[in-house]
Amino acid sequence: MPAILVGKIEPMRAIDIIRKKRDGRELSREEIDFVVQGAGHETIPDYQLAAWLMTVVWRGMTGAELAALTEAMLHSGEVLDLSRISGAKVDKHSTGGIGDKTSLILAPLAAAGGLRVPTISGRGLGHTGGTLDKLESIPGFDVNLSLARFRHVLEKCGCAMIGATPEIAPADKRLYALRDVTATVESPYLICASIMSKKMAEGIDALVLDVKTGDGAFMKSQEDAEYLAELMVATGERMGKKVVALITDMEQPLGRAIGNALEVEECVDVLHGRGPEDLRELSVELAAWMFVLGERVESVDEGRKLAAETIACGAAREKFCEMIRLQGGDARIVDEPERLPHAGRREAVTAERAGHVTRIRCEQIGMASMMLGGGREKIEDAIDPAAGIVLEKKVGDAVQAGETLCTAHFNRDARHAEAMELLSGCFEIGAEAPARRPLLREVIRWPRGAAKDAVAARAEARR
Amino acid sequence: MPAILVGKIEPMRAIDIIRKKRDGRELSREEIDFVVQGAGHETIPDYQLAAWLMTVVWRGMTGAELAALTEAMLHSGEVLDLSRISGAKVDKHSTGGIGDKTSLILAPLAAAGGLRVPTISGRGLGHTGGTLDKLESIPGFDVNLSLARFRHVLEKCGCAMIGATPEIAPADKRLYALRDVTATVESPYLICASIMSKKMAEGIDALVLDVKTGDGAFMKSQEDAEYLAELMVATGERMGKKVVALITDMEQPLGRAIGNALEVEECVDVLHGRGPEDLRELSVELAAWMFVLGERVESVDEGRKLAAETIACGAAREKFCEMIRLQGGDARIVDEPERLPHAGRREAVTAERAGHVTRIRCEQIGMASMMLGGGREKIEDAIDPAAGIVLEKKVGDAVQAGETLCTAHFNRDARHAEAMELLSGCFEIGAEAPARRPLLREVIRWPRGAAKDAVAARAEARR
Repeated sequence: MPAILVGKIEPMRAIDIIRKKRDGRELSREEIDFVVQGAGHETIPDYQLAAWLMTVVWRGMTGAELAALTEAMLHSGEVLDLSRISGAKVDKHSTGGIGDKTSLILAPLAAAGGLRVPTISGRGLGHTGGTLDKLESIPGFDVNLSLARFRHVLEKCGCAMIGATPEIAPADKRLYALRDVTATVESPYLICASIMSKKMAEGIDALVLDVKTGDGAFMKSQEDAEYLAELMVATGERMGKKVVALITDMEQPLGRAIGNALEVEECVDVLHGRGPEDLRELSVELAAWMFVLGERVESVDEGRKLAAETIACGAAREKFCEMIRLQGGDARIVDEPERLPHAGRREAVTAERAGHVTRIRCEQIGMASMMLGGGREKIEDAIDPAAGIVLEKKVGDAVQAGETLCTAHFNRDARHAEAMELLSGCFEIGAEAPARRPLLREVIRWPRGAAKDAVAARAEARR
Repeated sequence: MPAILVGKIEPMRAIDIIRKKRDGRELSREEIDFVVQGAGHETIPDYQLAAWLMTVVWRGMTGAELAALTEAMLHSGEVLDLSRISGAKVDKHSTGGIGDKTSLILAPLAAAGGLRVPTISGRGLGHTGGTLDKLESIPGFDVNLSLARFRHVLEKCGCAMIGATPEIAPADKRLYALRDVTATVESPYLICASIMSKKMAEGIDALVLDVKTGDGAFMKSQEDAEYLAELMVATGERMGKKVVALITDMEQPLGRAIGNALEVEECVDVLHGRGPEDLRELSVELAAWMFVLGERVESVDEGRKLAAETIACGAAREKFCEMIRLQGGDARIVDEPERLPHAGRREAVTAERAGHVTRIRCEQIGMASMMLGGGREKIEDAIDPAAGIVLEKKVGDAVQAGETLCTAHFNRDARHAEAMELLSGCFEIGAEAPARRPLLREVIRWPRGAAKDAVAARAEARR
């Protein structure tokens, strides 16, 4: 062991920044820039970044630090300039959950309602496929457009959906890959900077966040979800963007379909004015806020009306067809869902006794879907677009002994038995139906007062 | 961001161990073994080790975790089996400080008093050279003996001093290199495991620790020094070794010489029964405890007497000559110190006013010595064995205006001006002499009660 460390000589060094954060002191904008540039340009080695990430998990970040981190990550790569495209550019981002498929509904719905929706998604590693995997279950759909082509589609039909290109927030890519293997994923500060830097790179004016909470969400507790939501709203506002976050329930899967093609089919149902109530309600709520932030309407209520009308008149559905065509896909799936991939085998899970469904174990449903082929465990795994699960019963539904609770769709045998065993334990059945949980738990805007008022007003209106 | 992380499948993974420690849960012996083996065999990448090290800085370790870590690091490499060498094997380890040179005195002193002292040292990166650098200023002295030759020298003369071989605690080597660049050096748990694993690899029965505290020490506060000492004593006892720690003062350099050959000369002075009082006192104190732990005497007082006699009769000095000869060095330096390297140039720092020395800035003295060539800033720097500083005045000494406070010894010009400027600010002179600080602040044994009693008894005896 060296007797005593030698004093600082260089002007800025990664180790001094790690030590400063380790000791709980606030980093300057320059110090954070130094770390992010070091991540993007690979001038700081992995082990120093890993140690720094853990100090952030430990010590957290001030608002100024978080804004500096987000901006540095944003400017580590290309930021789309959509200023020559007319209209308000508004996107939605969800922190993700089982059966969460609203992106596919919202892009055409908001675009048909007069907004521009430039969506750049990551490819999810998790229980279910990400947005890109869902889109790719549409025959021919190309998620790998160049940024020029992306801009063209956006200009033409008002929405476009692609995967993240290497030019978008490269520092985040390196940091994210490291977080994934160093148990530093869960920091709300690092989550916030990662999400917000990538979303701000889309060149948007406003962002609606869907922060999920519950058993099937990344943020298990409402408190954690609120905290992350507040960080993201405050960070967005600091960057001059309009941001609102909806805290929504993920104690059971959203809608009835889990799995890529199955979820696309359910989205098409909603665009047809059908589909599960919870998915319809959340889509309308998120679209309403997108319309408010994009100044298409003056209140959330007007936004809800506009969203409902845009679905009812078929404009949202038509917009979805247009986007699919512009991105090379087969738009006939919208009226002929049998053109989507379908699994060769189905197997039902039935109720052992009568009663009411009191709980559906979200995380296990997701795991079972992955085992059936609907999600990937490792980044290199191939997804079966047809695999997944359809829920016949949701929480609160009455059920008879022997009735089907859910159906597994699959082609592969490899982990089928394991998946079915897991599924058989996912449903809890009790004597009485549980109290209905609201889907929307809270709206968080900045300054917080405004959000509180809005929530209070809505609660009043419902009485 | 992945929606939800996939559950564990493999039996043991580094990320789960990082997460567990991050969340403040106690690691099992198997988990700690897994990390240490992963460090030693390079099966865990640097970034995961770095993240794990930071969680240890953050969360600390329980006694069981620390013992498991130390043992795993010890068994990552070779452990000397000295069971066929008769006599008690006892070593001393110091946490290091400016002018700290007792190792060179204690090895021959304890060996001459009947113990076996197998010393394996690291090469220090810091203000002053490490023990190996000091030994290498003796013409011909070879610190790179094979373990077989080391054992031979030890058997023949009772002491031997070499550098750490690659076979000793290789996991510590990798972890130490990472700690050095990830701001995770300062954790008392990691320091303890690093020191104790290397010392236990020497195959010793007992260990006396000199834990320095003050401006010139790694542990600036007595509280931190005590905590580290307690960890090391407890860990040693858990491993079945007799361990005692002396908390000693490092508010000013130990002795008068700083720099490699200068320090060897001062050690020879002490072995001749001369030399600075503080260095003599501490050497006798440490030797006394070595004799107690090695069961050569029944009390520390008897140990002090044995140490003083062993110096007075010339046996310690003769033992030093014997070790030098067996390790290929020129033993004539003991009686003819002019055979050691001497610097071509000397420059004095004088007092600007009369008074008493109230403080000597330890860390700056060390830095100045390094700048003159006596220490290394980077591991690849070459040391000038002759360079260093000799203090003419110590804390409490009266001084006249214009009198010499210290003398710089040097050959190189590169940073000479910088060093002299630093030195000119190292001495504080006040009107009155400060109260004398005890050199030995506390003795820590396990169980603590015993140590407290011993300290109280000594304080009583002195009244």
